[in-house]
Amino acid sequence: MGFISTENAPVDVADVPLPAHYAGLKTSGERMLATWDAACTWGQTPDGGMNRLSLNDDDKSVREWFVAATEKCGCKVTVDAMGNIFAVRPGLKNDLPPIAIGSHLDTQPTGGRYDGILGVTTGMEVLQTLHAAGVTTYAPLAIVNWTNEEGARFPPAMLASGTWAGAFTTEYAHARADKDGKTIRNELERIGFLGATPCSHTAMPLSAHFELHIEQGPVLDAANQSLAVVKGIQAIRWYNIDLVGREGHTGTTPMATRADALLGAARMTVAANTIALAMPPAANAMATVAVVHAQPQSINTIAGKVRLCLDLRAATDADGETLDAQVRVAFAAIAAEQGLGYTIECFWTSPALHFDPVMVQCVRASTNSLGCAMELVSGAGHDSGYTSMHVPTGMIFTRCREGISHNPNEWTSPEDVALSAEAMLGAYLRYDDYLRRKYEGKNV
Amino acid sequence: MGFISTENAPVDVADVPLPAHYAGLKTSGERMLATWDAACTWGQTPDGGMNRLSLNDDDKSVREWFVAATEKCGCKVTVDAMGNIFAVRPGLKNDLPPIAIGSHLDTQPTGGRYDGILGVTTGMEVLQTLHAAGVTTYAPLAIVNWTNEEGARFPPAMLASGTWAGAFTTEYAHARADKDGKTIRNELERIGFLGATPCSHTAMPLSAHFELHIEQGPVLDAANQSLAVVKGIQAIRWYNIDLVGREGHTGTTPMATRADALLGAARMTVAANTIALAMPPAANAMATVAVVHAQPQSINTIAGKVRLCLDLRAATDADGETLDAQVRVAFAAIAAEQGLGYTIECFWTSPALHFDPVMVQCVRASTNSLGCAMELVSGAGHDSGYTSMHVPTGMIFTRCREGISHNPNEWTSPEDVALSAEAMLGAYLRYDDYLRRKYEGKNV
Repeated sequence: MGFISTENAPVDVADVPLPAHYAGLKTSGERMLATWDAACTWGQTPDGGMNRLSLNDDDKSVREWFVAATEKCGCKVTVDAMGNIFAVRPGLKNDLPPIAIGSHLDTQPTGGRYDGILGVTTGMEVLQTLHAAGVTTYAPLAIVNWTNEEGARFPPAMLASGTWAGAFTTEYAHARADKDGKTIRNELERIGFLGATPCSHTAMPLSAHFELHIEQGPVLDAANQSLAVVKGIQAIRWYNIDLVGREGHTGTTPMATRADALLGAARMTVAANTIALAMPPAANAMATVAVVHAQPQSINTIAGKVRLCLDLRAATDADGETLDAQVRVAFAAIAAEQGLGYTIECFWTSPALHFDPVMVQCVRASTNSLGCAMELVSGAGHDSGYTSMHVPTGMIFTRCREGISHNPNEWTSPEDVALSAEAMLGAYLRYDDYLRRKYEGKNV
Repeated sequence: MGFISTENAPVDVADVPLPAHYAGLKTSGERMLATWDAACTWGQTPDGGMNRLSLNDDDKSVREWFVAATEKCGCKVTVDAMGNIFAVRPGLKNDLPPIAIGSHLDTQPTGGRYDGILGVTTGMEVLQTLHAAGVTTYAPLAIVNWTNEEGARFPPAMLASGTWAGAFTTEYAHARADKDGKTIRNELERIGFLGATPCSHTAMPLSAHFELHIEQGPVLDAANQSLAVVKGIQAIRWYNIDLVGREGHTGTTPMATRADALLGAARMTVAANTIALAMPPAANAMATVAVVHAQPQSINTIAGKVRLCLDLRAATDADGETLDAQVRVAFAAIAAEQGLGYTIECFWTSPALHFDPVMVQCVRASTNSLGCAMELVSGAGHDSGYTSMHVPTGMIFTRCREGISHNPNEWTSPEDVALSAEAMLGAYLRYDDYLRRKYEGKNV
């Protein structure tokens, strides 16, 4: 993935004022909380969490609610071939693609009430605010629900925004199946959300994409901040490491002559951690081994085979390459020292994303106006990663308690939920005015 | 377990001569190889290995062959309640319990042709040598086939010698079941080896127990030696270690605030290895982590829970305690540093065994006479570990290629097979003469 920065006009990114006539326009915290709460009606679990796997009956219900609610605010709804829903409110210049505010309404099987849902409903609150005030924006506005962001039922994650962006073909995406063999295409058909519009950024173009999401990390909570500007998404690399040693009896094989695959794996796990910690703080380097498969898993037989899965992240691609190179040198040395056969395969790479500077500045100006100054790089992937391949993209992070996510204990305070909508309104209006000035040739 | 040293008479352990009238008595390499080969008739696998799980039809066949072959050499066969077979050849003093040469005829499911089988058949070759020469020994001789040494079908290992020794009750042992729910008692009955004699060291007493076994380690092969005196069995301790950290997203959880259970486990695995390697060589300290269970095994979720299984061994109990203490200190420190909940449970301890000095000297004198000077401590458990709780016990190790065992590639040269019988004959005759001198009051 790369990013597309705004190309059509020179821009002073510091210059994204909120137009004076919008000064009185405010979101409603009460309505925002009611909309968010309504969006959690289907798929609740007794522990306070959510289980709304993509395209199940609860997802069908929330989708129907979303369509009805946005149509009530004057939107025309388009559903594409991946079930992505675009609720478009006309603007002054309807030949321009809409500025989107999007996220997702599906959840993990033991998920929470904020991940994704908060992003879609802040968009709905922006919509309701404009609708109630009778405001006509410059470009159209689209509130977007991206299908199957979680990938929990149909791997991989972010499949439908990825298809929109051209990273996957629709044929591939349609054929993804859950563990019971049900395909996305059949499930879309079953719940009535297999749209006629092709799933692509050319068939359903956007002018820009905003997304608000809970941080899913503890940084805002630790800093006692409500919101952050998201500057981009970290570089991510995933690896499989296979080690082959020699099985042997733990009591009869001298320590000096062993080829212990699990000892080698342990040294690599420690080494990856040490290397990441030694990199400069600005690199935000992270190295994690969270998957280990050892064979034969017998207490008195030295492990003959081990597979590790390694997750490396860094703020920039250059930092990611440095981390990769250092890990490879260390792992090769450990394998040689322990007498192990060794392969390392990088099976997935997601280059670092830097969000469009105008979009970032719109978010920054809005969150700063609400007293929030923090700026973060996202460690997790989001639909915005795919939209940024084709359109200017910006994100806002909202604090969640202790960084807990993908868990029923996921929690964001009502105050922060309300503030999220206000921050999104400010960012969105700034970009809409930026487009006005750009295309009208005024004040740019 | 402890060991019983010879108590009835003072003894100069260096003084175990081979009586002059036995000087011409030799085992037959050809006959030994034929007997060993015949013992591998039942349960062969196409890859050259053996699959003769305890009490299956192939085990029944080899047992019937063993009974017939030993009866042909003038033995009276006793089968006890655990199916242990004692083929007793009378001596001069038949009020004395027999001197046993024992091991096992069952194998691992993917086992080899030497583990256990070599020990029983060297005993049979000693028997055939005495029978062919018409020699009457002082004490009776018993060739013993211990049931279910491997424990591969009916855990735990060494169950029947353990029952004989009183470590398990017969009721407990009879109730052990395989994965299909078949019990030892029913299978003994089915194959006709549920004997009337109680399984115990009082109902079926022995004067001593010799066992020859392949080393199952690479030391003899590396030293190019055929045989070794076994001085005892290492102290063994098995542990479960449970670590509890905090699950979190690998991309959004700062490295500094993690409680990564798998990182802690990796550091412990490395630390145990480092501690064992740092102990004095005489301690023969070994530390192995060969089992690891991590949760939730997702590449982008920090491991929240890990269980490790740890195997510690050392030449003496004191060395074992030192190893245990150092590991506990290191593990507690690592758990604290990584912010992990931590428990360690030692769920099985086998104290170090030191074989009876007269028995060891009989083995030493015999192997030395064959040009083999190596002395080892066994890293693996054997039936001799249990017999040593009640009677003087000694063991001989025979080299196996590269230390490979529990594997179809297990291999000992024909020359070493032949030499094994000769070494056992010499050790056995020395102890028989030692008993003669002890009870006759001559030359002791």
